[in-house]
Amino acid sequence: MSISPFGPARASVTEMPLSKDEIEKTHKYFQASMYLCLGMIYLKDNPLLKEPLKVQHLKARLLGHWGSDAGQSFTYIHFNRLIKKYDIDAIFVSGPGHGAPAVLANSYLEGVYSEVYPSMSEDEEGMRRFFKQFSFPGGIGSHATPETPGSLHEGGELGYSISHAFGTVFDHPDLITLTMVGDGEAETGPLATSWHSTKFLNPITDGAVLPVLHLNGYKINNPTLLARISHEELEALFHGYGWTPYFVEGSDYESMHQAMAATLEKCVVEIRGYQKKARDSGKAFRPRWPMIVLRTPKGWTGPRKLKNHYLEGFWRSHQVPIPDARTNEESLKTLEQWMRSYKPEELFGKEGTLTPALKTLAPEGLRRMSANPVANGGILRRKLHIPDFRTYEIDVREAGVTEAGSMMRFATFLREIVRRNQEHFRVFGPDETESNKLSAIYDAGKKVWMGDYFDEDADGGNLAYAGRVMEILSEHTCEGWLEGYILSGRHGFLNSYEPFIHIIDSMVNQHCKWLEKCLEVEWRVKVASLNILLTATVWRQDHNGFTHQDPGFLDVVANKSPEVVRIYLPPDGNCLLSVGDHCLRSSNYVNVIVADKQDHLQYLNMEEAIAHCTKGLGIWSWASNDQGAEPDVVMACCGDVPTHESLAATALLREKLPDLKIRFVNVVDLFKLIPEKQHPHGLSDREYKAIFTDDKPVIFNFHSYPWLIHRLTYKRAGQHNLHVRGYKEKGNIDTPLELAIRNETDRFSLAIDAIDRMPHLGNKAAAAREDLLNQQIAAKNYAFHEGVDPDYLRKWTWPHH
Amino acid sequence: MSISPFGPARASVTEMPLSKDEIEKTHKYFQASMYLCLGMIYLKDNPLLKEPLKVQHLKARLLGHWGSDAGQSFTYIHFNRLIKKYDIDAIFVSGPGHGAPAVLANSYLEGVYSEVYPSMSEDEEGMRRFFKQFSFPGGIGSHATPETPGSLHEGGELGYSISHAFGTVFDHPDLITLTMVGDGEAETGPLATSWHSTKFLNPITDGAVLPVLHLNGYKINNPTLLARISHEELEALFHGYGWTPYFVEGSDYESMHQAMAATLEKCVVEIRGYQKKARDSGKAFRPRWPMIVLRTPKGWTGPRKLKNHYLEGFWRSHQVPIPDARTNEESLKTLEQWMRSYKPEELFGKEGTLTPALKTLAPEGLRRMSANPVANGGILRRKLHIPDFRTYEIDVREAGVTEAGSMMRFATFLREIVRRNQEHFRVFGPDETESNKLSAIYDAGKKVWMGDYFDEDADGGNLAYAGRVMEILSEHTCEGWLEGYILSGRHGFLNSYEPFIHIIDSMVNQHCKWLEKCLEVEWRVKVASLNILLTATVWRQDHNGFTHQDPGFLDVVANKSPEVVRIYLPPDGNCLLSVGDHCLRSSNYVNVIVADKQDHLQYLNMEEAIAHCTKGLGIWSWASNDQGAEPDVVMACCGDVPTHESLAATALLREKLPDLKIRFVNVVDLFKLIPEKQHPHGLSDREYKAIFTDDKPVIFNFHSYPWLIHRLTYKRAGQHNLHVRGYKEKGNIDTPLELAIRNETDRFSLAIDAIDRMPHLGNKAAAAREDLLNQQIAAKNYAFHEGVDPDYLRKWTWPHH
Repeated sequence: MSISPFGPARASVTEMPLSKDEIEKTHKYFQASMYLCLGMIYLKDNPLLKEPLKVQHLKARLLGHWGSDAGQSFTYIHFNRLIKKYDIDAIFVSGPGHGAPAVLANSYLEGVYSEVYPSMSEDEEGMRRFFKQFSFPGGIGSHATPETPGSLHEGGELGYSISHAFGTVFDHPDLITLTMVGDGEAETGPLATSWHSTKFLNPITDGAVLPVLHLNGYKINNPTLLARISHEELEALFHGYGWTPYFVEGSDYESMHQAMAATLEKCVVEIRGYQKKARDSGKAFRPRWPMIVLRTPKGWTGPRKLKNHYLEGFWRSHQVPIPDARTNEESLKTLEQWMRSYKPEELFGKEGTLTPALKTLAPEGLRRMSANPVANGGILRRKLHIPDFRTYEIDVREAGVTEAGSMMRFATFLREIVRRNQEHFRVFGPDETESNKLSAIYDAGKKVWMGDYFDEDADGGNLAYAGRVMEILSEHTCEGWLEGYILSGRHGFLNSYEPFIHIIDSMVNQHCKWLEKCLEVEWRVKVASLNILLTATVWRQDHNGFTHQDPGFLDVVANKSPEVVRIYLPPDGNCLLSVGDHCLRSSNYVNVIVADKQDHLQYLNMEEAIAHCTKGLGIWSWASNDQGAEPDVVMACCGDVPTHESLAATALLREKLPDLKIRFVNVVDLFKLIPEKQHPHGLSDREYKAIFTDDKPVIFNFHSYPWLIHRLTYKRAGQHNLHVRGYKEKGNIDTPLELAIRNETDRFSLAIDAIDRMPHLGNKAAAAREDLLNQQIAAKNYAFHEGVDPDYLRKWTWPHH
Repeated sequence: MSISPFGPARASVTEMPLSKDEIEKTHKYFQASMYLCLGMIYLKDNPLLKEPLKVQHLKARLLGHWGSDAGQSFTYIHFNRLIKKYDIDAIFVSGPGHGAPAVLANSYLEGVYSEVYPSMSEDEEGMRRFFKQFSFPGGIGSHATPETPGSLHEGGELGYSISHAFGTVFDHPDLITLTMVGDGEAETGPLATSWHSTKFLNPITDGAVLPVLHLNGYKINNPTLLARISHEELEALFHGYGWTPYFVEGSDYESMHQAMAATLEKCVVEIRGYQKKARDSGKAFRPRWPMIVLRTPKGWTGPRKLKNHYLEGFWRSHQVPIPDARTNEESLKTLEQWMRSYKPEELFGKEGTLTPALKTLAPEGLRRMSANPVANGGILRRKLHIPDFRTYEIDVREAGVTEAGSMMRFATFLREIVRRNQEHFRVFGPDETESNKLSAIYDAGKKVWMGDYFDEDADGGNLAYAGRVMEILSEHTCEGWLEGYILSGRHGFLNSYEPFIHIIDSMVNQHCKWLEKCLEVEWRVKVASLNILLTATVWRQDHNGFTHQDPGFLDVVANKSPEVVRIYLPPDGNCLLSVGDHCLRSSNYVNVIVADKQDHLQYLNMEEAIAHCTKGLGIWSWASNDQGAEPDVVMACCGDVPTHESLAATALLREKLPDLKIRFVNVVDLFKLIPEKQHPHGLSDREYKAIFTDDKPVIFNFHSYPWLIHRLTYKRAGQHNLHVRGYKEKGNIDTPLELAIRNETDRFSLAIDAIDRMPHLGNKAAAAREDLLNQQIAAKNYAFHEGVDPDYLRKWTWPHH
């Protein structure tokens, strides 16, 4: 049977490290934080309650979350003692970021908030402003938003606190990231698997995460699962996840202060002990790291009941605890009594400044968790040492003749980056790095693995206690680790199968939002870009079929703010190198690179590739025959497989209709297509017209869903001449050609499409069309009988007319 | 330390239920299945190896996954014995659906495959076809795709086997869903949290899921986490999740057969025992349901080594185990020896038909797992009893005057549906049903909760052992349950906050793909639609701010096949009722309904609403003044909040410029905008023009990102006159008006926009424009100072000119 959150502390650790005086002071500090939380939710005036509380002191709209504030603040404050005692480098990750008042209150109490925002000074007027701005137009949000000093995790969308926290401590050996995990959040899938992160944490080179699972008991309107199972099951669960859970449960202040102080200290001592053992011996191992299960009543320190309804210890305390304080006299009174019960005059004096006796409880300088530069990682970001990508050039003497593996070459470039940046660069991926042909990286940094080892692992397992590649079959955990790693000042990138990147649509969405808001926060220093390399793309899924065909992540990314997103589709290996180099040097973006992992025709030598990628799109004159004239048709493409088919279509057209003037255009940087006013990379209308014309048919072969191109170009003159082909959700375990034919992106369909757009061409074109159709049918039949595309299609090269 | 998968069986259950003869027969049956698996991966000819194996017998491209086949087939076969012995109604869910050969082989062995696909008969020629079609153009995919008899879970994207399985057993009290969970899949977030589903399973009214966690040891190129932790941790983990884990570990055939037979039987007996206890007593409880941890070598029954590299028991056996069989003589020999080691001639005789002695091992008729109608749920689907939605009408005497809660009214309609369909309709949601104002449903069906109960729950907790509403803070689990529930023949719907529906983009994507492929499979009967109600929408996030603002799920859905997706944005309560009724009656779609949960102006009485929703879009004549004439401007809108602002803008324009002819258009059914050729709901160009004109400015206020409208209409004449406003990723904790102003979707911006598109209007319009701008600024300033929008904006009603 589950345990009640009420009563004297029940705790695994029974030491009592605090003196009576320390308990009293700590409790006052705690009360000060609670007072501030209520102030933020309710007050726009009368911050110290010097006057009787009136409706006009309240905000017109009451917003904010009270439920988890007490537990979070309680934890924060008790860790402060240990930071001082053990000189700990620590940050605080608030999983229930909705309980931002707790985080904000502590930043204000330790003085950081006023240093960062001088108008919110440590006095009555500053406190008034501090209260009013919370969840108020023109003010700050009600989560641990980017405006919050010490926050690198907003907690708006739940599920990522533990993976973010682990990201912050990799390669930060001295850091302890104290991480509150809400018991609501703990029900999400991403959080449920992220507990396994300890199997990837090296006690020599990495710091430690100290999770505090807050058994607050309730979500918005429901009990939480983990608060309603037996102690035995709960303990077993975390034991099974590989942790040592210590319990602190109850509501009685005095005993709870003792228990929390003792338990947190036990954890710190254990963490340091494991680290010392590993570091002294030079032998890494996986300890059962300590964690805390903190069970307190939801809305702790509030009234137990309101008008016969439970408040403290029930879900009714989730948000604004007394919602009708503006309209009900009695409720207003209750609120006033409650606020006064914290005795603000004793805590903040007449001036509204925390009393000096309490002030000393907080750590000093950068040891204050809300002042730690790790949480403003851009400050710590060191330059990535990148070799000259030009030296990895794929030798391309003649365009469209050489075949080579773009991805395998790119891997050698990455390998050198890994080699040169052993302390601040990692590669992340959900068990696909080798499948994605990036295994060259392992030469410079193996896969981190703190699980058990078997003999077989020596047979190409590429596992090591200390490595640079992080692989777990959880896109969520990979992305969460990478975000935490970047936000705390390092560099990295994620590689993933294209179809399953949708699994983290929402995480990427939230990261984009975080980055965008950071641009509005003056003191935030830019962090490294989050680089996502997508491969195993839609066009080569003869192996896995329809479930593995979805290039729509680009649509999700394209909806995000132009300030923070970039999308690149390099057509060949040298372009991939150029684009990759650019992305790794950039900051504050989410860069998405789409490139196939199979062998491909190569088109541009390095010099040409750099020029092409710098422009972002351009006419390939060697494939065009409209020099010095207006073209009859523009064959455009974006993406490596589509480029290949567009070129083949162009070759077919030029062979069959040699008089036709064809312009061949390739797009690398997708946002070049948007008008310049809408995206910093966008072309002007004049530039756009110079490339695509405004009156000629454009047959545009696109990697992803075709409508994205229309969405980007709908304002362009001549857009009614733009005929986009792309993936139209038609597929199976098709050969590459069959799949292309289903979606009309194959060479034959493209060439036929071009002919159909030029009805003036007459009979000769009709004959060519007939030919193309027959060739298409023959190729399809061949595939159907033999199980592969005909040789001449697989080994096609540009004919160099 | 982790345990080796090799050696004699180590098992928690030590009974030895099988006779020598049974072991021998079972092993032969197992070998027959393994032979078929290899045949599928390799052969297009010579299926019984009557001739020496030659390259020309092999497929040109070798595709498929071998790694998990043995463990899956082993489990399937041993469960067959129990189905016969205990007359169990069972289906098989293959988490590692990539190992489809195991599932296909068993369907073929039990005769179902040949019944469903007569050309794949139980003879040599049938076997040849059966082999060749696998992962071959024109054939079937390499996962447990819809073409697979007995499958309702493809396993292409990993993570959903357990939640799907639970979905199948809710309200199916006699069903046992035997569920293989891959240890790769087990690392995903969605899977990791879905183990908690037992807290929502009632042993009286629901069946049981019997999970078999397959510790296959490896993913594509990595060991799996759960295979590399200690037995103690592993046992604790599942104990903590609330299960009783039984272990079966080893590779020795004889002892493994005994162990698996005994352990599965133990589980079945326990399941039946718990069910009996609960059903006899009428008292539901949460047992520690049994599950199995099956540890066998990856690629079990294959060669241990190939050319000095580990194969069996290592990740190299993940896909095609001998990849160079076509090009290396020696490898071809190895393959042949291996295949012959199963002795196909003894298993299938000369004719290629499984020997009668082995045939008897399979259950008969619908008891064969691949013939169970539950996995073709459309067969079982009973009609949903839906009350006449017209009786829930919101009384609207005059358009745009009444204010009411559309969602609360809709909840009363849903309540009646819940009441009338207690055995085949459930509502799912991630702890948001009450927040979404749907709590009226609880009157007819409470929230299922098998966790512990506290006294506080009586205070409006709405929890019960037997209920109709399923709430866990995991969108993944809710969606997985619902999918499983629908696919096994029932009805339901999901309600979610709009911003976080992106969390399940990928799941919905996969469900759409499943539905679409089912349309191509003749014997699949249509299932109920998957209905998703999105609320807590982008435009009312003054509470939660920027992280809660993302209406982009519509973009993801719009990329899916037109055959299976529908999107509705009802403008008011009666339209919501009409749309909701339509969706709940439909089949084989993913229906997305977007509606705000706050109180709203109501516009249409029920008759008008039905007419409007049936058309899908239309001119609202009461808001228009272009009757009998060409309009000067079209004010269009889609979505309830945008409709409100568009109407207000129209009123402003008509007040300030009474001579202006304005047509007001509202869109409910988003796909009306696409050309008819591209979507079955699409308007013809003539119909489109009759509504939007092809030459007048259209100011279109849209609920979501504006570009989606351009993507849908880019082919329409007059699209260059279409000016779409929508969410542009600009937001904070803004008041409704502020947020609208940031994104230019507010009444003032819309009216100004309209004026700007009609430069011929001259001075009077310029003055009106100035007025509007001043009003906008004043409103903004008011919000900034007071924290709320001005009263006249919040309480605006249509003035009825």
